[in-house]
Amino acid sequence: MNVESYFSKNIKAALQNDPPGAWMPELPEDCIRLSSGYPDPALMPVEELKDAAARLLDEEKDLPLHYLGSPRVQGLKQQILKRLAERGIYVREDQLLITSGACQAIDLIARILLDEQAVVAVEEPTYMEALEIFKNYTNQIIGIPVDEDGIQTVRFEDILEERKQAGLTLPRFLYTIPTFQNPTGTTLTTERRKHLLELSTKFDFLILEDDAYGELAFGESPQTLKSLDKQGKVLHAGSLSKVVAPGMRIGWVAADSGFIKALEWFKKDLDHPFAQSTMTVYLEKIDFQNRLGHLKDVYRAKCDVLIRSLEQFLPESVSWYVPKGGYFVWIRIPDADTSQLLSEALDKGVSYIPGKYFFLDQQDRSEFLRLSFSHADEKDIIEGIRRLGEVLY
Amino acid sequence: MNVESYFSKNIKAALQNDPPGAWMPELPEDCIRLSSGYPDPALMPVEELKDAAARLLDEEKDLPLHYLGSPRVQGLKQQILKRLAERGIYVREDQLLITSGACQAIDLIARILLDEQAVVAVEEPTYMEALEIFKNYTNQIIGIPVDEDGIQTVRFEDILEERKQAGLTLPRFLYTIPTFQNPTGTTLTTERRKHLLELSTKFDFLILEDDAYGELAFGESPQTLKSLDKQGKVLHAGSLSKVVAPGMRIGWVAADSGFIKALEWFKKDLDHPFAQSTMTVYLEKIDFQNRLGHLKDVYRAKCDVLIRSLEQFLPESVSWYVPKGGYFVWIRIPDADTSQLLSEALDKGVSYIPGKYFFLDQQDRSEFLRLSFSHADEKDIIEGIRRLGEVLY
Repeated sequence: MNVESYFSKNIKAALQNDPPGAWMPELPEDCIRLSSGYPDPALMPVEELKDAAARLLDEEKDLPLHYLGSPRVQGLKQQILKRLAERGIYVREDQLLITSGACQAIDLIARILLDEQAVVAVEEPTYMEALEIFKNYTNQIIGIPVDEDGIQTVRFEDILEERKQAGLTLPRFLYTIPTFQNPTGTTLTTERRKHLLELSTKFDFLILEDDAYGELAFGESPQTLKSLDKQGKVLHAGSLSKVVAPGMRIGWVAADSGFIKALEWFKKDLDHPFAQSTMTVYLEKIDFQNRLGHLKDVYRAKCDVLIRSLEQFLPESVSWYVPKGGYFVWIRIPDADTSQLLSEALDKGVSYIPGKYFFLDQQDRSEFLRLSFSHADEKDIIEGIRRLGEVLY
Repeated sequence: MNVESYFSKNIKAALQNDPPGAWMPELPEDCIRLSSGYPDPALMPVEELKDAAARLLDEEKDLPLHYLGSPRVQGLKQQILKRLAERGIYVREDQLLITSGACQAIDLIARILLDEQAVVAVEEPTYMEALEIFKNYTNQIIGIPVDEDGIQTVRFEDILEERKQAGLTLPRFLYTIPTFQNPTGTTLTTERRKHLLELSTKFDFLILEDDAYGELAFGESPQTLKSLDKQGKVLHAGSLSKVVAPGMRIGWVAADSGFIKALEWFKKDLDHPFAQSTMTVYLEKIDFQNRLGHLKDVYRAKCDVLIRSLEQFLPESVSWYVPKGGYFVWIRIPDADTSQLLSEALDKGVSYIPGKYFFLDQQDRSEFLRLSFSHADEKDIIEGIRRLGEVLY
């Protein structure tokens, strides 16, 4: 049977793109994973979540097992509002939607804002799953370059001005990870943040701020775009995946209630009472700022180890941005082809993600690669970079 | 800010419809809920799921808290394949997608099959959430009447033939709940099942079989459409919501691998490792057929109590279909307006769902209402129907 003959026209168009996750290399079993943007296994609150699940079911019995009914499902919103306040974001419950991780938040936002006539702007390089999502809705994606201070807003303004002059459609929204960006680890300066918000008013576009790493600052977290936004132009997406556990699948959108209502309309997987209520009990019980302090210490130390290893084991010509938080370090190896080198690296037992996959146009992007210091332990980070050095010499 | 000005064109069209759940009346606190299609609270495996979550985290530590990695996430597929085999459906892993309940399964299927040019056929009356989902994609929905033997396939054939003669678009798929239908409780006869499959070949449409209640037969479960399907035309959706717990959000689609691949492409909430792995451990440990036997006994007894109460407390003119399984009884009260009567019923402390909400065209559907015997206990069922009787006399 030719299943494609039954497909809707939007889906047929989307299926022209690469399948989701096609960029992910198959990793050997005992490989040191500097490719994985996963949290450190040692930081997973296994016992605490076990206790939370048990306490939840002891206290609420069958309630969290129904569609609705557990007060802790609603309670999760209260807990997330507290987290948002720590990021300088003061919103009401009707301005917040709980999602299954930030990925679903991005997908739902794309769904209510994009169609094949719409233009979306992204940072280049950017989070590859977001690119995959946007390609499902439109092929009009424009990339704005990122440097060590984040997205180049002056360049963005030029591009917008040129499009306006030429009578071209302006972007419906910009997708940005302003703080500890994936993949570059860079952070947008305060000046550029303000410039970006001015542009959103001048050229009337929205901003989807992905703050997945924002709490994981080695020093102070910079102000969120949402906290600086006076016009309601920013849709702020966050997640507990990087600071608690991705397997709980808890993310959110904070935005004008009109957007939240539209997102709810299309969110058909409903609430997830068991997982969400378990998380509520966990959050009720812990001192989150204390946990966050510990996470920052661990990731700061691992980042330091990675940077020192890069200095020790990699050729002089290799350069990188030193991140102020998050999970990632972005590396440039002049004249290298990091896609070609990958199989050699995997043979030696170390993985990374070739940088080209984070770009819209992958031509001439072969000098870059992304390393993550989040998942591997310090010993493995050192050994992984030593192996990478062997590949490069 | 005018948020609608940023919306995509598909969403703008969808927002013309009633908001999701608009039909759901606000219920007084102590109301006997004969409206809720929720499982019996006493049948919720609270202790078993608590043990399963604890055992999972003891055995696998942090694995189920990552994006991937718990063997039990994959293990859930094995458990669901066993359940499907009990329904006469023998598929491989690549023909199965785990979803967040049957609702997400229906939404994803609508997304890959429907666009504004597409026609979809539904039973009338049918599951209202499915109607809401389809309206998000197309306004070309055609209703096929249901009688006590399920969807009227002869009538359906006439409609298809007429459309073909008139050069009108034929449906891309039919959405049907052939077994213990929501809301009528009726079951499609074997003869009509075979006729339906013939029609799907003759008029080249797909069938979305929603089997949410299929396992809850008071006697024998009838054969699924999928098990009778030789052409790969049936996409079979199921769920653990009615037989284990809806709060775990576990559903699935079994279909040709070409459909599964497309569905996976657009499923952006990813797997839910914690909830799914907990369910795997639970399913590994219990004797499911034994549990199912108990569920059937309880629901059969409650259905009997409801039917006897209807006979005892309702006027002679009121009629209903006697279900052979599932959760629902469909009632006809000649010349009544069940929407108007609802506020009186709620005042007396009993709820139901007015039948008109299950129809595409709600005109002249005011004689019907849906009762559920799943959630309330036997004592409350009797008292609820006594109160309903007071409203009708």
